[in-house]
Amino acid sequence: MASTLMYYKENKELVKEMTNEEMKNIIKSGEGVLWLDLLKPEKSEMDILENIFELHPLTLEDCINTITRPKIEQFDNYMFIVIHAASTTPRSQRVRTIELNVCLGKNFIITIHQEPIKGVGTAVERTQKNHQIMSKGPDSLLHLVIDSLVDNYIPVLDVMDYKISNIETQVLANPTQKTLNDIFAAKKDILYLRRFIGPQRDTINFLSKENFQFIHNKRKVYFRDVYDNMIFINDTIDNYRDVINGAFDAYLSKVSDRTNEIMKMLTIIATIMMPLTLITGVYGMNFSHMPLLKWHGGFYIVFVVMLFIGIGMLVYFKRKEWI
Amino acid sequence: MASTLMYYKENKELVKEMTNEEMKNIIKSGEGVLWLDLLKPEKSEMDILENIFELHPLTLEDCINTITRPKIEQFDNYMFIVIHAASTTPRSQRVRTIELNVCLGKNFIITIHQEPIKGVGTAVERTQKNHQIMSKGPDSLLHLVIDSLVDNYIPVLDVMDYKISNIETQVLANPTQKTLNDIFAAKKDILYLRRFIGPQRDTINFLSKENFQFIHNKRKVYFRDVYDNMIFINDTIDNYRDVINGAFDAYLSKVSDRTNEIMKMLTIIATIMMPLTLITGVYGMNFSHMPLLKWHGGFYIVFVVMLFIGIGMLVYFKRKEWI
Amino acid sequence: MASTLMYYKENKELVKEMTNEEMKNIIKSGEGVLWLDLLKPEKSEMDILENIFELHPLTLEDCINTITRPKIEQFDNYMFIVIHAASTTPRSQRVRTIELNVCLGKNFIITIHQEPIKGVGTAVERTQKNHQIMSKGPDSLLHLVIDSLVDNYIPVLDVMDYKISNIETQVLANPTQKTLNDIFAAKKDILYLRRFIGPQRDTINFLSKENFQFIHNKRKVYFRDVYDNMIFINDTIDNYRDVINGAFDAYLSKVSDRTNEIMKMLTIIATIMMPLTLITGVYGMNFSHMPLLKWHGGFYIVFVVMLFIGIGMLVYFKRKEWI
Amino acid sequence: MASTLMYYKENKELVKEMTNEEMKNIIKSGEGVLWLDLLKPEKSEMDILENIFELHPLTLEDCINTITRPKIEQFDNYMFIVIHAASTTPRSQRVRTIELNVCLGKNFIITIHQEPIKGVGTAVERTQKNHQIMSKGPDSLLHLVIDSLVDNYIPVLDVMDYKISNIETQVLANPTQKTLNDIFAAKKDILYLRRFIGPQRDTINFLSKENFQFIHNKRKVYFRDVYDNMIFINDTIDNYRDVINGAFDAYLSKVSDRTNEIMKMLTIIATIMMPLTLITGVYGMNFSHMPLLKWHGGFYIVFVVMLFIGIGMLVYFKRKEWI
Amino acid sequence: MASTLMYYKENKELVKEMTNEEMKNIIKSGEGVLWLDLLKPEKSEMDILENIFELHPLTLEDCINTITRPKIEQFDNYMFIVIHAASTTPRSQRVRTIELNVCLGKNFIITIHQEPIKGVGTAVERTQKNHQIMSKGPDSLLHLVIDSLVDNYIPVLDVMDYKISNIETQVLANPTQKTLNDIFAAKKDILYLRRFIGPQRDTINFLSKENFQFIHNKRKVYFRDVYDNMIFINDTIDNYRDVINGAFDAYLSKVSDRTNEIMKMLTIIATIMMPLTLITGVYGMNFSHMPLLKWHGGFYIVFVVMLFIGIGMLVYFKRKEWI
Repeated sequence: MASTLMYYKENKELVKEMTNEEMKNIIKSGEGVLWLDLLKPEKSEMDILENIFELHPLTLEDCINTITRPKIEQFDNYMFIVIHAASTTPRSQRVRTIELNVCLGKNFIITIHQEPIKGVGTAVERTQKNHQIMSKGPDSLLHLVIDSLVDNYIPVLDVMDYKISNIETQVLANPTQKTLNDIFAAKKDILYLRRFIGPQRDTINFLSKENFQFIHNKRKVYFRDVYDNMIFINDTIDNYRDVINGAFDAYLSKVSDRTNEIMKMLTIIATIMMPLTLITGVYGMNFSHMPLLKWHGGFYIVFVVMLFIGIGMLVYFKRKEWI
Repeated sequence: MASTLMYYKENKELVKEMTNEEMKNIIKSGEGVLWLDLLKPEKSEMDILENIFELHPLTLEDCINTITRPKIEQFDNYMFIVIHAASTTPRSQRVRTIELNVCLGKNFIITIHQEPIKGVGTAVERTQKNHQIMSKGPDSLLHLVIDSLVDNYIPVLDVMDYKISNIETQVLANPTQKTLNDIFAAKKDILYLRRFIGPQRDTINFLSKENFQFIHNKRKVYFRDVYDNMIFINDTIDNYRDVINGAFDAYLSKVSDRTNEIMKMLTIIATIMMPLTLITGVYGMNFSHMPLLKWHGGFYIVFVVMLFIGIGMLVYFKRKEWI
Repeated sequence: MASTLMYYKENKELVKEMTNEEMKNIIKSGEGVLWLDLLKPEKSEMDILENIFELHPLTLEDCINTITRPKIEQFDNYMFIVIHAASTTPRSQRVRTIELNVCLGKNFIITIHQEPIKGVGTAVERTQKNHQIMSKGPDSLLHLVIDSLVDNYIPVLDVMDYKISNIETQVLANPTQKTLNDIFAAKKDILYLRRFIGPQRDTINFLSKENFQFIHNKRKVYFRDVYDNMIFINDTIDNYRDVINGAFDAYLSKVSDRTNEIMKMLTIIATIMMPLTLITGVYGMNFSHMPLLKWHGGFYIVFVVMLFIGIGMLVYFKRKEWI
Repeated sequence: MASTLMYYKENKELVKEMTNEEMKNIIKSGEGVLWLDLLKPEKSEMDILENIFELHPLTLEDCINTITRPKIEQFDNYMFIVIHAASTTPRSQRVRTIELNVCLGKNFIITIHQEPIKGVGTAVERTQKNHQIMSKGPDSLLHLVIDSLVDNYIPVLDVMDYKISNIETQVLANPTQKTLNDIFAAKKDILYLRRFIGPQRDTINFLSKENFQFIHNKRKVYFRDVYDNMIFINDTIDNYRDVINGAFDAYLSKVSDRTNEIMKMLTIIATIMMPLTLITGVYGMNFSHMPLLKWHGGFYIVFVVMLFIGIGMLVYFKRKEWI
Repeated sequence: MASTLMYYKENKELVKEMTNEEMKNIIKSGEGVLWLDLLKPEKSEMDILENIFELHPLTLEDCINTITRPKIEQFDNYMFIVIHAASTTPRSQRVRTIELNVCLGKNFIITIHQEPIKGVGTAVERTQKNHQIMSKGPDSLLHLVIDSLVDNYIPVLDVMDYKISNIETQVLANPTQKTLNDIFAAKKDILYLRRFIGPQRDTINFLSKENFQFIHNKRKVYFRDVYDNMIFINDTIDNYRDVINGAFDAYLSKVSDRTNEIMKMLTIIATIMMPLTLITGVYGMNFSHMPLLKWHGGFYIVFVVMLFIGIGMLVYFKRKEWI
């Protein structure tokens, strides 16, 4: 649908368009640095990948397929890297990921994605403005793309952070059914993030440790730096998980405590009222001969007794620290 | 019970029947590609496996036995692979598995199963229609069989997916005893799937990494592709497990909250009614001398007092956000 | 207490008795195959082990001691294997284990146990009936003994299976205190089985993988077969554990639900009865001047009002789906 | 504070006292076997360790410090082993540990501890009675000390075993608040034991597997034997943990069941009494015109109706299996 | 903001100030030992790091950035170590960490931090007082800094210890909502400590095991000693986690038990009062013809019956051990 092409050769202008024939010659010559960024590649563009860059059929399949896991695969003429970008959905702010496929060859790098990716866009712009960046070789461009892609994980974490602090405040103050639903939504997002970050981290670690034909050894320390960022992100998410689990435990304890409070209130009211009601019941019986009934002060004596019982109960509950 | 035989030799017609003698010669010669698919093999067919293909007694035993775990075993003249297909039972849609035994030799592949397997059927048909597939050698047929077998895991996952979404909706809306039973059934299915997928994944990973006598090195990248599918399936199931566990936690919290609601209602009604009943009890006592009783406005005063108490209680509960 | 001796030499009769002197010569010569099965060995038999077979003091100690863990130890003149048989206690059907000590030398195998073991008995009988089995060497006898010992784990699993299905049925239908006790008993048994199976599996895996002086390499594939059985048994027990944990969760949820049901009933009855009782209380007060009291239709009006309130409450609970 | 010295040389008397000069010569010569057991070593004794045995400053620090973890450290002229003994406190029978520091050189062994250790005491006595033990070298003494130290773990386990059986009986019969406190105390002890046994086991495993300058290879099988004991002890403690967790789960379930029972009782009594009380309330109203009131048989009819309602409720609860 | 410089050369005075030129020469010569401690380094100081010490751009970035994870990175001319100090916030005593960046070269060590660190301060002072310490080389200074930094973890643990003992006492005596909040705060602190200690431990372990260009092999045993301290600290924190989890379980059980107690009380009062109230209700009915009503002893008989019922109920609950 939309593609960007950049070709840099020492001491020359940045080339932004070329014929397939020219491209073929460049690939063959192995000179200069070519960056091809493809957004929703069309049939004709896929043909270029197949015929000019000579990508393996399995690679082409993975480029179209959008549920490939992060991975690194090495072929004779290029290496293939799948990595994912993260963003949040517009309104509900749920986490989502976009797949980025990268082919890195001797003098070219191809980035293929089915949706616009912020990190890739930034990298393309930066390179267009300052094409001297390309002089360091395609592996340096790979670092640039992955680095700005990983930098774009941070806003996603910030959204998560805000949600979790919000939940914690709710739980400590006055948790409701909504709090519970928020907890479960956050839990799901964190699960998703953890499953998503893990393989990215492994892939980048792999880039920083193994020897690859098309990555210069001195570039590794830069990937190591990106890897350190990934570790930090991973730690943060682990922290989120622990905090949200703690919040869930707190929620359950609070509900438990609240049931306790309600039970206490019910028991206090019943324990005070029932004996008093019994006494009124006794003096409400229609026996013709009952003590006190006919006497003037009878009612007042019974009333005082009831008062004493009521107050006694209250004192008892006070002592038990129920009220 | 039912067997399919296909023999392909370059530039020749596909042979679909042959005598045991011919088969023996083909195995000896090591030329062409022979595929023997056995469904519920009879005694005579087992004899062919034993005498013509010279399978090890332990292999023959495993072919009859239907509770073998996925594995790869290497013998001098062939390698033996056990792998499982997945399907669902007709009505209750519970997950079940069918065992597939494969023997891969220099120029032959044997597939043995006790029940029809959809993935194998598809592969056989595809080969019969286009027997050029066989020209790539028996290891390519192995990939074909395993690939279409793994593809048939997806519908099973879809059934699972539907069940779990259903449970989640129920839990968030109005969970009942049936929801609980559904959760436990789903949990059991997921446990079963996890235990079933794990060894398949390891077996296929093994195929994509190790060197085997009868598998060409360039075939490995294809098994690696199947392995990536298995990883994706595995991740999906892990996700199901986490979601169902979350649903169970949500169910328990909902029940807990509901008990709380019921307790609140009981406490509210008791706390309002009991004091009022006590007052009626007091004025129901048969003392001959009681204040207000004889007075015209007595009843109305008491009634107003009761009204105030009742309303006061309601206001109190409103303030506590119970109602 | 009871010992069985079998000595096989090619083309000769099976020898079932011999003097210590003869035994010593056989061990020295390294010819033929000798099997000595000792049940509760006496002092004189332990002396034979020490002096004729020249077992290490630590081995002799382990043979008497009945709480040795499964293990394999190699000495110069023999290897020492400890493995456990499983059975169930007669009435309560709880799982128990019996220790079997095996010494495997160049031309002898010694099996020592303090109680009769079904698997060993079967193996001895089979060998006595068909002593050609012995011609394959002592390592083949080791496989025979371990294989029939592992086969005897299956009935123990069947008992477990029956118990667990029984618990599941109870939990889904109408769980009682007895169900809870059954769950905890089953949990303990499964814990015991898991702790018991683990080391057996490792020991057998070791036999199938490592190189041992007295085990022929071509025998390994047979031990691998026994190992596959152990894996299957292990998986089954893991499954039992998951199922019983699920059953426990279900039990707790059911109790929770039931408390809920009871609370609902109490709340319904209290919520209907209390307001009605309050009304009767009001008209039971002894005020001399109260509306309706003296009027003929008064009672009926109040009665109808009470009826409406009662029915209204029922409708309300029906709407809330409580009844 | 108290030190024991033993020096053994072939065909000579056991020397129990010597000057620092003599000691220095013995260490230099590398002949015979010297055992120095130091309880709360004084400054002068520490000086001997520093100057005569030439221990590393870090070793000397660890010997005074009592919170060192079990470990093995190798120096040029000796190896340093830290291991812990277990015992129980006199009254409350809580688990505690005592640190033992051992230095093993070519012809000497030094055991240093800040409190008397039963296992070490036994080993010293045994050696004094039969000093031929020392002829096997200092590594044999190391085994002797560690073996008798590990043997002294068993009484600690027995105390634990008694406590846990006691808890289990309580939980199954009639759990109280005390049971709960016992469970938490036992849990803490088991946590402590697990953390304490783990590193000991690793240390002894290390002794039985690695090659050390001052430990003869044929001694390893003995350390392996001690290691097997440690594994057994470890398994036992794991078992305790599982049992106590099971007991805690059982406790919670019992409390849950009990709440259920209490709720049932309350609901039964309220459900029977409330409607009957309502009826009495109705006939207690002071309407001048009410049916049945004036009639002779009125009371009996109402009474019979109440009886029917009461019995009917009981039958209903019987059917629901509540009583 | 504030920097300390120390330069030691054998048999010379400690140099505390020098020009950039002198510094450059010292670095080049590789002679003597230079320690540069930078607190909130200014631009000019960062320039020295970049130009004179020739630090890698990534190192410079990490020195300014305060969220770097503990790590060791090796460059040609120096190694870079990030490690964290621990302290507690003034009032609420929550745990916090401060990052320390260390660059260790052939004859220099640079310590960079954005806030004052107690451990570093102590080390600087000790060195200023006795500059002979510097004669052992920069790796010895590294040990000095890390050792005193790790020593400063202990007061943080003490604060934690006090908090947890406090919680345990509360839970066993009379847990309140505040206890719950304290438990969750402590849990969060422990989570934080665990996440913080883990990487420090790994980093120090790395220092004690691997070979580094600028760390002398004989220094490793000292780092091993620091590592042992870290293990001890780690064990202590694991212990805290287990204790706080136990306290949380205890809290929940206590709340559960308390609900039980409340329910019991409610049930006892209702079970005694309701039947008695029913009896008074019966004799409060206005039937003109009822037994006992007109008889003198009627009331007393009914009263005695009620007394019997009440006492009978109490005896019943006594037997059930409810009171």
